[in-house]
Amino acid sequence: MNDREAMQRALELALRGTGHVSPNPRVGCVITRDGQLIAEGWHARYGGPHAEAAALAAAAQAGEPVAGATLYSTLEPCNHQGKRGPCTQAIIAAGIGRVVVGAIDKNPIVDGVGVQVLRDAGIEVETGVLRAECEWQLRAYQHFAATGRPYIIAKAAQSLDGSIAAANGQSKWISGEESRTRAHRLRREVDAVLVGATTVKKDDPELTVRMVEGPSPRRVVLDTNMDSSLRAKLFVGPDRFKTFLFTSESQASGVKANALSVSGIKIKSAPATSGDRLDLENVLEQLAAEGIASILVEGGAQVLSSFLAQDLVDELHLFVAPMALGEGKGTFAGLGAPRMENAPRMHFHSVGRSGEDLHIIALRGPRRAATELNS
Amino acid sequence: MNDREAMQRALELALRGTGHVSPNPRVGCVITRDGQLIAEGWHARYGGPHAEAAALAAAAQAGEPVAGATLYSTLEPCNHQGKRGPCTQAIIAAGIGRVVVGAIDKNPIVDGVGVQVLRDAGIEVETGVLRAECEWQLRAYQHFAATGRPYIIAKAAQSLDGSIAAANGQSKWISGEESRTRAHRLRREVDAVLVGATTVKKDDPELTVRMVEGPSPRRVVLDTNMDSSLRAKLFVGPDRFKTFLFTSESQASGVKANALSVSGIKIKSAPATSGDRLDLENVLEQLAAEGIASILVEGGAQVLSSFLAQDLVDELHLFVAPMALGEGKGTFAGLGAPRMENAPRMHFHSVGRSGEDLHIIALRGPRRAATELNS
Repeated sequence: MNDREAMQRALELALRGTGHVSPNPRVGCVITRDGQLIAEGWHARYGGPHAEAAALAAAAQAGEPVAGATLYSTLEPCNHQGKRGPCTQAIIAAGIGRVVVGAIDKNPIVDGVGVQVLRDAGIEVETGVLRAECEWQLRAYQHFAATGRPYIIAKAAQSLDGSIAAANGQSKWISGEESRTRAHRLRREVDAVLVGATTVKKDDPELTVRMVEGPSPRRVVLDTNMDSSLRAKLFVGPDRFKTFLFTSESQASGVKANALSVSGIKIKSAPATSGDRLDLENVLEQLAAEGIASILVEGGAQVLSSFLAQDLVDELHLFVAPMALGEGKGTFAGLGAPRMENAPRMHFHSVGRSGEDLHIIALRGPRRAATELNS
Repeated sequence: MNDREAMQRALELALRGTGHVSPNPRVGCVITRDGQLIAEGWHARYGGPHAEAAALAAAAQAGEPVAGATLYSTLEPCNHQGKRGPCTQAIIAAGIGRVVVGAIDKNPIVDGVGVQVLRDAGIEVETGVLRAECEWQLRAYQHFAATGRPYIIAKAAQSLDGSIAAANGQSKWISGEESRTRAHRLRREVDAVLVGATTVKKDDPELTVRMVEGPSPRRVVLDTNMDSSLRAKLFVGPDRFKTFLFTSESQASGVKANALSVSGIKIKSAPATSGDRLDLENVLEQLAAEGIASILVEGGAQVLSSFLAQDLVDELHLFVAPMALGEGKGTFAGLGAPRMENAPRMHFHSVGRSGEDLHIIALRGPRRAATELNS
């Protein structure tokens, strides 16, 4: 097992912590001796052992000596006295001979110091193996660690021409089952899902993880004027204790907010800016203080637009269906498909990059084997 | 050189006819003996020799005997007495031993008969080598040959959210230089480019091929009420003889239409349907009669929508820029970037299929090396 293979395995192990460790990062670790894997570890739950400590413990339990062995970690080992003592000291104490690190921890209290401490102890340290992959897996944590602000992922499902509903308001379903499954996978990746009051009124969503296995994230509703129904699923289901509702300062002390608060909803107030929008920076600060390091913004359009206009969207997932709805003023303006069934449907032939743009080719009608290039 | 390699070469040769042979198909041909290439041919200009005849002539000129040789053609050889006599007879007369065909000609007067004639003459015929690639290269011709209706390619450049202009109307340029170059390449591929009167008024386009080498296609303007300016570039430039203007029956005999007709514009009338739209089926019939087998519909939104709503779009090319403009009622409704410079810009991280949908991931801000997965 070479360095890249070992780090690849550590990346896989790290995923086991998804949904259980935040605001800590998910981290994976393997230990090899003479190129043979002797132990694996991962950060499995918030407050539990770090990946490095878990791997060292696994080696000890298996009776595998680690003196002179190589330890791989997707993230730089911590050197600060956290819940469990610094990993760097455990690594040094165990006699590890070489440490290979994927990403340097952007938390200002680590940020290279972990590597330095190991080197000062005479351990050979290599950094940057599968760096891009490790940084990608850790991007939400790294952003939160560096800025103190939750990492924002925006998600939308739209037609080819950017419409999110037919003329009759129908939006279920623009995207197909695979896309909806991926959207649930995104929910599993984040600490919280956020929607606006209009979405609560219109769709009454549950915002839970259903189409894949895994824990459901917390939920955040932005509702300046307390327009949401007290009977919305987010407020009455068994997961209602996971719901935060942000409203204006005046509404936060009102009757409706009080009723929700009594049934377990966490009511928060934020200053309202022009146009009755809540101050998003303030909302994000409060959510960060609750240990929410990543947020999936699911809509609606006003909420998505506000996040984007304030340059708060770190990552956008756009599911594009091969149909045109022609709402609004876009590419197929005037088409205005009254119902979803009326939407002209095509099928995607190919998609590729065109400079900074995408070049999408769609062909007439639904998918047919005969029109496929590679059929 | 095996069958696939020889057919690949024939496909490359066929491209040399692009823009010069319509409404004939572009076709490429190679002849091999004992696996060695001995002659190449392609259909170079409308009325000129077909690819097979050109290849046979090239072999004769080079003094290469072709008796028993293998002939590869991207399209089934014709068996009808066209401008030059049937290719099947030339192939039989030359003593070719084996013929390999990419696509069967969907023209009802060929459609397998060419292959049958060759087989009846004792020639071994194989069909379907690189069939998908040949069908793709010949798709416009095949559609026209089978249906008598021009193949319609729609093209649009839009923001992530399907907007085609900023709030101030500015649409230059949403897409980048590479995308605009590809759009010019598309123009070179078709017999005509079609726009609506609004686009003529707003953009005053030339619709010529400029960013790549090649002949400019003919141009078609749909203008029910003769709203276009007589001084529009399409009507005054040196290519004005290539311009067709379709208008209502009443306008077609009016003063404005007459003035354009005198300066060389081809005025056509078509019945108007509801909402002052010209009957597209009628327009396409007239264009087909002019030998126009493929049309690139470039806009505006109303024209694109009409084609799509009537199920007339065979192929859609969508250039998507990594920015949001928020016009209309789409994914970022309410964003409404007043000018192009205000549009929030992201960069594409990845794109892939998600069932029948596309899954596009864009990241914050313009492209930076550090955020790239594969940097």
